[in-house]
Amino acid sequence: MSNSTTITAQPGEQVVDIERVLDAPIADVYRAYTQPDLIAQWLGPRGYEMEVGKFDLRNGGEWAYVHTSPDGGVFGFHGCFHSVQPHERIIQTFEYEGAPGHVSLESVTFEDLGGKTRVFGHAVYQSVEDRDAMVASGMAQGVTEGFERLDELLA
Amino acid sequence: MSNSTTITAQPGEQVVDIERVLDAPIADVYRAYTQPDLIAQWLGPRGYEMEVGKFDLRNGGEWAYVHTSPDGGVFGFHGCFHSVQPHERIIQTFEYEGAPGHVSLESVTFEDLGGKTRVFGHAVYQSVEDRDAMVASGMAQGVTEGFERLDELLA
Repeated sequence: MSNSTTITAQPGEQVVDIERVLDAPIADVYRAYTQPDLIAQWLGPRGYEMEVGKFDLRNGGEWAYVHTSPDGGVFGFHGCFHSVQPHERIIQTFEYEGAPGHVSLESVTFEDLGGKTRVFGHAVYQSVEDRDAMVASGMAQGVTEGFERLDELLA
Repeated sequence: MSNSTTITAQPGEQVVDIERVLDAPIADVYRAYTQPDLIAQWLGPRGYEMEVGKFDLRNGGEWAYVHTSPDGGVFGFHGCFHSVQPHERIIQTFEYEGAPGHVSLESVTFEDLGGKTRVFGHAVYQSVEDRDAMVASGMAQGVTEGFERLDELLA
């Protein structure tokens, strides 16, 4: 049975918090978050193909990827990195190209539990409406399935 | 007498809103916001020297500048651009190099008032604590003096 994923979005706030324990050492988890060939194997819902374009993991560097759904829908995303601290924290922006001008500022923090790793995701949106739209888009399913796929990759 | 600057930071929220009318056409105001040699003449408090380094005004491009205070203090800032819509809106991130890891997501929107221009600034911080620290740092004085310097440049 997989570990549970906690997703918190308080009414009226413009934040989403995500917490998940992974049964793998922090170095392995960090690698799965930062190597494009590994990211493409787990990020996002099951059944999607992912192609990572730019992935310039440094303060100010750009990233971009494209998801293709099982029925052929194409979804592009891009952003930039801020304050990359290896094995500790990555800050980045996130923009879905289907909703240009709606940007979020996200961080993922890695906590070493000794052979296991806790990851904390923190996303801030430009407005409560933007946050609510992201939650309504099916974010929880994509995040939860992504972590299950990450479990499988790390195993 | 200069136009007034409205800065709003509601208690418990992680947002700062800024509103200011400038007595100049939108094309002139947009140019003052997007040409590095013009930006260096107004952005920030009086008495500071500003040197703009990178200024790659496109979705995903980087910017960086350094402010030098009258007593020789050096303050570096950097970020990246998102969704640049000429004469309409610029979205960008902002990080003070003296407080790495504390990033804000900012937008400035330009409204054409017919010979005058209203600018709306909207900054979202990663936490209420980050927002409060920015307000406590003397942000209001820097913003207000910056707009007064911009008035002088546009005149």
